[in-house]
Amino acid sequence: MPHAGELSDLIGRIGPLDSGAMEQARVRQRQLTKPRGALGRLEELAVLIAGITGLERPRWQHRVVVVFAGDHGVVREGVSAYPGAVTAQMVRGFVRGTAAVSVLAREVGARLVVVDVGVAADLDAGLPIVHRKVRAGTRSMVEGPALTRAEALAALQAGAEVIAAEVERGVDLIALGEMGIGNSTAAAAVAAALLGCAPRDVVGRGTGIDDATLARKTAVVEQALAVNRPDPADPVGVLAAVGGLEIAALSGAILEAAARRRPVVLDGFICGAAALAAVRLAPAVRAYLIAGHRSAEAGHPRVLAALGLEPLLDLGMRLGEGSGAVVALGIIAAALASHDRMATFSEAGVSERITGR
Amino acid sequence: MPHAGELSDLIGRIGPLDSGAMEQARVRQRQLTKPRGALGRLEELAVLIAGITGLERPRWQHRVVVVFAGDHGVVREGVSAYPGAVTAQMVRGFVRGTAAVSVLAREVGARLVVVDVGVAADLDAGLPIVHRKVRAGTRSMVEGPALTRAEALAALQAGAEVIAAEVERGVDLIALGEMGIGNSTAAAAVAAALLGCAPRDVVGRGTGIDDATLARKTAVVEQALAVNRPDPADPVGVLAAVGGLEIAALSGAILEAAARRRPVVLDGFICGAAALAAVRLAPAVRAYLIAGHRSAEAGHPRVLAALGLEPLLDLGMRLGEGSGAVVALGIIAAALASHDRMATFSEAGVSERITGR
Repeated sequence: MPHAGELSDLIGRIGPLDSGAMEQARVRQRQLTKPRGALGRLEELAVLIAGITGLERPRWQHRVVVVFAGDHGVVREGVSAYPGAVTAQMVRGFVRGTAAVSVLAREVGARLVVVDVGVAADLDAGLPIVHRKVRAGTRSMVEGPALTRAEALAALQAGAEVIAAEVERGVDLIALGEMGIGNSTAAAAVAAALLGCAPRDVVGRGTGIDDATLARKTAVVEQALAVNRPDPADPVGVLAAVGGLEIAALSGAILEAAARRRPVVLDGFICGAAALAAVRLAPAVRAYLIAGHRSAEAGHPRVLAALGLEPLLDLGMRLGEGSGAVVALGIIAAALASHDRMATFSEAGVSERITGR
Repeated sequence: MPHAGELSDLIGRIGPLDSGAMEQARVRQRQLTKPRGALGRLEELAVLIAGITGLERPRWQHRVVVVFAGDHGVVREGVSAYPGAVTAQMVRGFVRGTAAVSVLAREVGARLVVVDVGVAADLDAGLPIVHRKVRAGTRSMVEGPALTRAEALAALQAGAEVIAAEVERGVDLIALGEMGIGNSTAAAAVAAALLGCAPRDVVGRGTGIDDATLARKTAVVEQALAVNRPDPADPVGVLAAVGGLEIAALSGAILEAAARRRPVVLDGFICGAAALAAVRLAPAVRAYLIAGHRSAEAGHPRVLAALGLEPLLDLGMRLGEGSGAVVALGIIAAALASHDRMATFSEAGVSERITGR
C-alpha cells in the first residue's frame, strides 16, 4: 500500500472499540429509571461513546468544533456561486463571532477553533486562529494534481496535530467542519474516486448553484478525474490529486481523534468525503465516527451509506462550517448527560416493571 | 358545538400567525452570511416563530418544560408494564433532578415545571411542584367516563393557567410533557375517537409491553370506546370519556400557549393526542405547534400526520416526560440564535453571490 510508511505510526495507534466499557454502559442503561430502550438513539450513543473512550460514563462537558479552511484553484473554472475571496472573509467572520458556526457553537457550549490550512489570502498573524497554512490554496485539479503528495501529507499532519493539541487540553467531544469556496467540487471528486461512482452521482448544488453551473461543475469533476486518474487504493494520492488542504486536514483530524479515543462528529458532504479517505487509510476509524446530520447536498446520502452511518439530524441543512455537527453536539451531550446523571431504579426507589408484561 | 360556551373566551383569544413578522424574518434570513436556505429547517423555524410571536427576531433564552402528571383508573385492567405507583415516584424523581427530563432540561438550559393535575397519591404540599390536583386519578374508562365533563374542564383550565403564569414570567419557548402510568392507553382512545380509526392503529407498546399485554390494551381501548361512545365533534367530551387529567391539561396548555403567542413544542404520542383535541377545539392552534420528535410509539406517526406536523427529531425515543420535546428545544434555540446573532453580508463585509450562477 502506498501509504503504509507515511502514516503508519498514526494508523497503528487506532484500536477497536472497548467492548468491556460498552457492556458496562449497557448494564447501566438497563438500571436507569426509564423503560429499557426508551431513550432510543440516546442510549446507543452513550454505549458507543463508552466504547470509543473506554469509559463506562464518558464525559461531555468540554466540547470543541474545529473548522479547517482552505481555498481551491478549481474555483477559476466557475463551479461556485461565490467568489473565492469569501473563504478568507468567512474565516474573519468566524473569529468575529457572527458566522453561523460561531453563533451555534456558543449556543451549544462549544469552543470554536478555526484552522487556516490553506486559505489563499494573507490572514493577519494576530488573528486568533490556528495558523497552519500548507499553501495558499490548491492548484486547479483540471490541469493536474491539486496538491503534491507532500502537501497533502502536510495537511493531514496539520489536522492530526490540531486534534492532538485539543485532546491534550482535555476535550470530550469533537465536531468537525470546513470552509472553502469550491470544496464541494473537490469533495465530489474525492468521493467519486474512492467510491468508483460517476461524478453526476455525487456532484451537488453546494452553496446553491443554478442548472448551468451544476452541469459545468459535473464536467469539471469528470475532467479532473480523467486528467489525474487517482488510484482509489491510495487515499493520500486521491486527496492530493483532486482533494483539498482542508479536506486532507479533516482526514488527519479524524484519524488522530480515533487514535486518541475521542468521538468525532462529522458535518456534511465535505467531512464525509474526508472520512471516506480516513476509513480507507484505517478501516478501524469507522467505529469512531458519528454523523451529525444528513445534509441536503445531493451526494451526502451516498457517502453516508458507504460509511455505514445513520445521521442524528435531518434538518435540510447544507451550510458547512461544521454547522450541522455542532447542532448535533447538543444531542450527544443530552445522551451522555442522561447516561451519567439519571438515577437507577434502586437509587430512586422507583418500582421496577411488572414481570410477564 | 358543545364546547362553544365553556372555552369560548380562551378559543377566541387565538389568532392567526403574524404574516408581517414572518415576511420580515424571511427578508432577514436572506441577508445573513450564508447561502439562501442553507440552514434548512432552522430557517423555517425562525420564520414560523416570528409568525407565532409577532417578532422579527424572537427571543429564545428563557425556556421551560412543563410536565403534567396524572394517574389512570384503567391501569387496573393490566395495560401497563409498570404499576400505577410509579407516577408519584417519578414525580418525586423529577423534583430530585434524577429523572430523564430533569437531566435533559438542565442540559438544554430549561426550567422544569411539574404539575400534579391528577396523581393518585398524596404528594407532600411542600414538594416544589405546581399543585393543581383535580382528582386523584381517573376512573377506569372501561366502566364509564374516566372523568366528568366538569373535571375535564377543570384540568383544561389548570393547564391553561399554568401556561399563563409562565408567560407572565416571560418565558420564550415552552416544551410540554407528561407522566402518567397508563396514559398511552388513554391517549390511544382519544386518538381513535378523534380520528375515527381502529384502536389497533393507534395502540402501541407504551413503556414496552409484551404481545399479550398489547392485545389486552387494544381490547381495553375497544371496550372503552364501546362503553362511552364519545362524540368526535365534542373534544371536551372525548377527553372526559376516555382521556386523562394530564391529557386534558396538556390540551388546555396548548390552547393558552397559542392564545399568548408562544411556541409550544410537543413531546410524543400523548402530547400529540392532547394536541389533536386542542386543534379540534380551535383549528387556529395548529399553526402554533412544533413537533419535537417522532416517537417510537406505534400511533405517533398517524397523529403527526393528522396534525400536519413534521417532527424535528427522529431518535427512536419513547419515554415521555417531555424528554423528546426538551431535546428539541436545543434545535429551536439554535434556529433562533442563528437568526438573531448572525451578521448580514453588508455588516460582515462578505461578498455576495455571483449573479447568474
